[in-house]
Amino acid sequence: MAREVSAKGDHDPAPVPIFHVAELSLWSFYRALIAEFIATLLFLYVTVLTVIGYKSHVSDACGGLDHLGIAWAFGGMIFILAYCIADISYGHINPAVTFGSLLAGKVSLIRAVMYMVAQCLGAISGAGIVKAFQKDYYERNGGGANMVSPGYSKGAGLGAEIIGTFVLVYTVFSATDPKRKAKDSNAPVLAPLSIGFAVFMVNLATIPITGTGINPARSFGAAVIYNKAEAWDDHWIFWIGPFIGATIAALYHQFVMSAGAA
Amino acid sequence: MAREVSAKGDHDPAPVPIFHVAELSLWSFYRALIAEFIATLLFLYVTVLTVIGYKSHVSDACGGLDHLGIAWAFGGMIFILAYCIADISYGHINPAVTFGSLLAGKVSLIRAVMYMVAQCLGAISGAGIVKAFQKDYYERNGGGANMVSPGYSKGAGLGAEIIGTFVLVYTVFSATDPKRKAKDSNAPVLAPLSIGFAVFMVNLATIPITGTGINPARSFGAAVIYNKAEAWDDHWIFWIGPFIGATIAALYHQFVMSAGAA
Amino acid sequence: MAREVSAKGDHDPAPVPIFHVAELSLWSFYRALIAEFIATLLFLYVTVLTVIGYKSHVSDACGGLDHLGIAWAFGGMIFILAYCIADISYGHINPAVTFGSLLAGKVSLIRAVMYMVAQCLGAISGAGIVKAFQKDYYERNGGGANMVSPGYSKGAGLGAEIIGTFVLVYTVFSATDPKRKAKDSNAPVLAPLSIGFAVFMVNLATIPITGTGINPARSFGAAVIYNKAEAWDDHWIFWIGPFIGATIAALYHQFVMSAGAA
Amino acid sequence: MAREVSAKGDHDPAPVPIFHVAELSLWSFYRALIAEFIATLLFLYVTVLTVIGYKSHVSDACGGLDHLGIAWAFGGMIFILAYCIADISYGHINPAVTFGSLLAGKVSLIRAVMYMVAQCLGAISGAGIVKAFQKDYYERNGGGANMVSPGYSKGAGLGAEIIGTFVLVYTVFSATDPKRKAKDSNAPVLAPLSIGFAVFMVNLATIPITGTGINPARSFGAAVIYNKAEAWDDHWIFWIGPFIGATIAALYHQFVMSAGAA
Repeated sequence: MAREVSAKGDHDPAPVPIFHVAELSLWSFYRALIAEFIATLLFLYVTVLTVIGYKSHVSDACGGLDHLGIAWAFGGMIFILAYCIADISYGHINPAVTFGSLLAGKVSLIRAVMYMVAQCLGAISGAGIVKAFQKDYYERNGGGANMVSPGYSKGAGLGAEIIGTFVLVYTVFSATDPKRKAKDSNAPVLAPLSIGFAVFMVNLATIPITGTGINPARSFGAAVIYNKAEAWDDHWIFWIGPFIGATIAALYHQFVMSAGAA
Repeated sequence: MAREVSAKGDHDPAPVPIFHVAELSLWSFYRALIAEFIATLLFLYVTVLTVIGYKSHVSDACGGLDHLGIAWAFGGMIFILAYCIADISYGHINPAVTFGSLLAGKVSLIRAVMYMVAQCLGAISGAGIVKAFQKDYYERNGGGANMVSPGYSKGAGLGAEIIGTFVLVYTVFSATDPKRKAKDSNAPVLAPLSIGFAVFMVNLATIPITGTGINPARSFGAAVIYNKAEAWDDHWIFWIGPFIGATIAALYHQFVMSAGAA
Repeated sequence: MAREVSAKGDHDPAPVPIFHVAELSLWSFYRALIAEFIATLLFLYVTVLTVIGYKSHVSDACGGLDHLGIAWAFGGMIFILAYCIADISYGHINPAVTFGSLLAGKVSLIRAVMYMVAQCLGAISGAGIVKAFQKDYYERNGGGANMVSPGYSKGAGLGAEIIGTFVLVYTVFSATDPKRKAKDSNAPVLAPLSIGFAVFMVNLATIPITGTGINPARSFGAAVIYNKAEAWDDHWIFWIGPFIGATIAALYHQFVMSAGAA
Repeated sequence: MAREVSAKGDHDPAPVPIFHVAELSLWSFYRALIAEFIATLLFLYVTVLTVIGYKSHVSDACGGLDHLGIAWAFGGMIFILAYCIADISYGHINPAVTFGSLLAGKVSLIRAVMYMVAQCLGAISGAGIVKAFQKDYYERNGGGANMVSPGYSKGAGLGAEIIGTFVLVYTVFSATDPKRKAKDSNAPVLAPLSIGFAVFMVNLATIPITGTGINPARSFGAAVIYNKAEAWDDHWIFWIGPFIGATIAALYHQFVMSAGAA
């Protein structure tokens, strides 16, 4: 986002080169990687802990959290984390968002790859801390891993991930559009809140179908730590789905929403 | 909203002509139609999926979502969608809002009609995707269709739709009032959030009465895909009610709230 | 709030005279009364309907709304209504807020009295519409009337109303402090949201004690329409408590928070 | 926060001296102490009342509040209180935030100590009012005191407090970073909301583990008024954990997030 601040006019900034070796010598590049790592760690820590806590209390009637509380945990964390590190790393915290930004020419290939590595390592660490806290509850309650629920086909699961990620990446692109920033100074204020709400909404809708991935690092970190066959069987859905959704969102933004207003 | 940005002074912008053929040659006009189509599709997709998911889990005690979660789905989606496309199409996503804007001279007749068509097609598509995902749950759980609940009269249902739509359109008009924009630069920041909350509030109050329409495209899309007699019997209520509510809100804004402050 | 916009400097605006007959000839005065009437009507309509809807569904396990949904209805409505009419009438919607504003010299005595009359009439109308929709549910579920719950003393009820109203009026005064507006242009953006959250919070805490009044018009309108002895027995608490709380908040703001920063 | 307003450039303001005797003669210093006292009082009052109200209603199925409502009470109160007193005392309301601010050179040692005393006295007073309202419910329901839940080790409890406080203090530092304020005027608008959400999120995740402290004054006030052995046994965790978490957050902000962007 910091880069976009320099776009004073009503034009898109020039795309970042695919290979941008110079940034490898900048401290701000490594700081961004650390920020993505820590943010994804905290994201998995809070959300998986919330999922576990909900399930272990469901027996005492309504004392625990229902899907609404879990959806808030995912959406609320993205709100605060995206808000905190927007100026540091653009606040992706999600390989699908990074992939969309790569397609849109907002980040270089090397930054995109390094971000995804940092996000996945952070997610593994965050889920690992939760398991370390209380292994029994963690195992018994599925460890927050994403799977297609009984009653839904693989195709429905894939579709849910594609459309869900589309909603998220479409909101990210609309909220951080530099044209918008130039035209109307009010719109960017709510950017992190609307991005958080997009995650909240998609979780409300698709927790019953897949547990809601729309973030391959989140799905990968939970699968690595849970590490049972059922978590790996559907795992491809939580990479392919989000990447397709992000691609469609990037195309939609580029060729429809952001195309020259003749 | 983009148009209103040009209103620098404390005066209302000149009303848009009823027939405004020139806009038919603008790409921005068709882009607005696409934006309304996609936004209404996503609106129905997320909200109907949430309704279905809630009902299919209600048996496992508190594992599903209660009315509060459903109300959040409707309100939260309107927040993010209105935020994302405010600059593209003013973010109506609702024929009642379009109708109110037509009465207030904010959009031309041809734009109003085309918006409503795009919204209804989007709503049908969004509800259709949900049915395609899991037909059994969809059928068993009423498909998110609006009907007057047992225990309430048709008159109460119509009244609930009129007042509920009044709350929504009144909030839209207050939030996007160009006079306000000119006077106090802070107010417009929260516009999409307050509009989303208006939808959230009305859903909290009237889900038990009608399932809450206040958006004819939402009611129509759900009815077309569910397509059972009980969904069509009361269907007129979900067009007449919102249009009456929007009319009263437009009159109230024009002749009371916005009338010359002598 | 409109008036405060003219306070450019770091000084409090001169207090409004107690008797301010000139405003009786202004259309903006009557518009403010209409705005307060309609807003309080909508406030009672949505909140009482939510209370009724919750209780009538409690039998189907968790299908209805719990206290959290009711607290959102009260807080969310105050957010959108205060946001919509801030520039028209300062968005009081509550005789306790009006009383505090009178003590602080922000409104004249005649405006304060007329506001309270408009608020009470609006509240009666809003509650009346709910009863007209479905009399059985309304009667069976207590009509949203405020009473001290079994297990709590009258003193606890009075204390809950005093402290709850203090939280609300203290937030209103902090959020709309003209000194603050002059110093830091960011703070006022969230004013209506923080005021709505204050109402949300107090409801979460005190629904189990009194049903949460902190607004004499809300308590009065519900009592008039419900009109049973048990609603009137404790009714004095819902006037005396809020007025004491508003008085303390006005004194605290004047002599502590807003006192000269030497 | 008021002080940071004067930082016009992209540089950190000079750190406050550890001993800053001059501020002892300023009314604004004592006003800040009063603001912290009252805010912490209201924080404990609303949150402990919500916890009590939830537990005493859990028997009537879903009539009470679940963890989600309690998490909202904690997060929502911090939002409104931090918003209200940001300009008066920086809105700490929490010895861990004060401790982090001391380490970061934002407040003097004497101010830090006096704040913590004011916060603890406020917390005791707020919890005391709740007990005075209804002693039976208060005793029966644990008085909102923090303890490590059965099934979790002391280490897990300490870890939960460390990471939870890290999330909070990290958000506070990001939201109020003067560099950020200078670069992008939009970011600070959402500061109190994001800080409130950080508290909301941590509560969602860790109520099942410790009841969620992340605020030694909150834990201390509840323990003093509840005053049973089980509340004191683990009490050290709720001081040591938050102070470690705040220290890590201060170091992380200083040496990573805020380090020179070469």
